[in-house]
Amino acid sequence: MPRGKQLNGSAAETEAAFYDALARADLDALMALWADDEEIVCIHPGAPRLLGHAAIRASWEAIFENGGVHINPVLLHQTHKLMSAIHNVIEEVKERTGTQQDRHILATNVFVKTPHGWRIVAHHASVAPGKAQYEAPKVTLLH
Amino acid sequence: MPRGKQLNGSAAETEAAFYDALARADLDALMALWADDEEIVCIHPGAPRLLGHAAIRASWEAIFENGGVHINPVLLHQTHKLMSAIHNVIEEVKERTGTQQDRHILATNVFVKTPHGWRIVAHHASVAPGKAQYEAPKVTLLH
Repeated sequence: MPRGKQLNGSAAETEAAFYDALARADLDALMALWADDEEIVCIHPGAPRLLGHAAIRASWEAIFENGGVHINPVLLHQTHKLMSAIHNVIEEVKERTGTQQDRHILATNVFVKTPHGWRIVAHHASVAPGKAQYEAPKVTLLH
Repeated sequence: MPRGKQLNGSAAETEAAFYDALARADLDALMALWADDEEIVCIHPGAPRLLGHAAIRASWEAIFENGGVHINPVLLHQTHKLMSAIHNVIEEVKERTGTQQDRHILATNVFVKTPHGWRIVAHHASVAPGKAQYEAPKVTLLH
């Protein structure tokens, strides 16, 4: 199936294509997933915010000089509206130096529906201390 | 004017009410600004994510034990859709120990329009190194 067709489908598909492009270090595929809007925002963990296509593209280009970034987004929490989707994931990063146990990465990914399909308008990633909390089932207090 | 009336206005008004509630340490006013949805997400700088009203409320309650948090949100970048608004701001925090020069805080605030007005579905704040970049006007290259 042509990739363009897939991308009209859902925010989840665009998010999957995002992490796939990161893994393959495919800069063009990655940048095609962002909305055609100079207000797009990208915040890498522990870094200042980047605005607009040129700055965001340059940042990923620098990252990809060391190859792809292998991230498994897990524990998705999401809010969907007709024209937008807000996702929050824990990014399991396959680190070249082994798995870090003392920190994890959180990402808020925001998508909007455009005439060309679901596109990224914001990617905000940040570092949180400790091992990711794999939420236990909620205990409901009876009284 | 009743506060409820104001909050139907715009995402910007809800955001202003959010930072106002933080400054006044008004927990009830603060929590009333969030969407009535257990998928709401709050990430405090350098902390794990919190999901749902109970966890988010408890976190702010603990923060407010030391009084209000005085934040001036500046350099807003935003993407608006009919039913949602994605804001990214630099949070100028008036610290009790003086102004920090070696770091700044970035926040992505996401709002959705509900029958009760614009409500927060995500607040993701994180620390970035260095002084905030107060963007200079963009230079357009002529060739």
